[in-house]
Amino acid sequence: MNELTARIRAFADARDWGVYHTPKNLAMALAGEVGELLAELQWLTPEEAGAVMEDQEAADRIRGELADVTIYLVRLADVLGVDLVETSHAKLDQNELRFPRSVR
Amino acid sequence: MNELTARIRAFADARDWGVYHTPKNLAMALAGEVGELLAELQWLTPEEAGAVMEDQEAADRIRGELADVTIYLVRLADVLGVDLVETSHAKLDQNELRFPRSVR
Amino acid sequence: MNELTARIRAFADARDWGVYHTPKNLAMALAGEVGELLAELQWLTPEEAGAVMEDQEAADRIRGELADVTIYLVRLADVLGVDLVETSHAKLDQNELRFPRSVR
Amino acid sequence: MNELTARIRAFADARDWGVYHTPKNLAMALAGEVGELLAELQWLTPEEAGAVMEDQEAADRIRGELADVTIYLVRLADVLGVDLVETSHAKLDQNELRFPRSVR
Repeated sequence: MNELTARIRAFADARDWGVYHTPKNLAMALAGEVGELLAELQWLTPEEAGAVMEDQEAADRIRGELADVTIYLVRLADVLGVDLVETSHAKLDQNELRFPRSVR
Repeated sequence: MNELTARIRAFADARDWGVYHTPKNLAMALAGEVGELLAELQWLTPEEAGAVMEDQEAADRIRGELADVTIYLVRLADVLGVDLVETSHAKLDQNELRFPRSVR
Repeated sequence: MNELTARIRAFADARDWGVYHTPKNLAMALAGEVGELLAELQWLTPEEAGAVMEDQEAADRIRGELADVTIYLVRLADVLGVDLVETSHAKLDQNELRFPRSVR
Repeated sequence: MNELTARIRAFADARDWGVYHTPKNLAMALAGEVGELLAELQWLTPEEAGAVMEDQEAADRIRGELADVTIYLVRLADVLGVDLVETSHAKLDQNELRFPRSVR
């Protein structure tokens, strides 16, 4: 993850994109890419969506959309100085208190 | 990242949430959390947004929203069988060909 | 619709919110409200979602989210000088050519 | 607005799209279209975004995206049996109580 963050930062720097990569702009770009991901799934039935990765072309498009979402999320977190893995673990710590396990 | 994926999977399994965690539902949840992240930034000027992490309360909320986005993204990728780091590197390989570096 | 547009404009003007209501900020707010709408539906099965308006509390929340989405969409269109009804009819004219009717 | 709702309903019926137009699917499609709208604005400065309708090509794309958002919002409301104008006025009634006017 740190390596991915560094690569995306270097990629943006090499293209002088830092000026565009403000928190607001990156958050908008993230939402735009999530919209493209939704578009891949929106007309599928739940069953079709559950088997979507068996269709090679759809699978490639979905991997591409997941990558775009990840890249903007990682870049936004980098610009804001947030460690995504660390903050996710902290949130899961909270969630474990909020949502008790099922009793079986 | 693999550890985070495994923890989120165990968290969902312990609560019998697998039935809710379909690709469509998780994509909707991801979009919902991105919406909450946007809401943290939407009325700020670009300058205010650039300094938002200096405000401790706003910073805590933004870390929490970034965590929620990450958790649903990681969970969705896990359900779809996609390695987010690998697919992001593959996309960056493509992007390096599509977008030439700035000449300086 | 024109009456609604005028009311929302007067509402914003009376609160000196014009300075916040830039196209980018309103587009972010629109996406944020759509996220809240998704959150109302995300964990429901298709059948549950199809009957959601029969649950009075859920129906009230959904009407409220649809109102928030509409208000920001109408406001954004007003700021951009776009007539939503007219542009929607123009798009439907195009869509009628793109998507032929089912033959029965 | 009622005319637009009726036209969109007839358009969907003529193509046998009713089966796809579930509340969840339409909410996802709405979010997808909002994502495309955000993408038109995301890299612009606030000043550029404020003047975006003076660029004829960008203006056409934005009108098209606003139309797509409107069409899915109107269709979703129709499927849910919600009158968007009425519920927006009811929300503005509430908002007028929640947010007092500026004192000048």
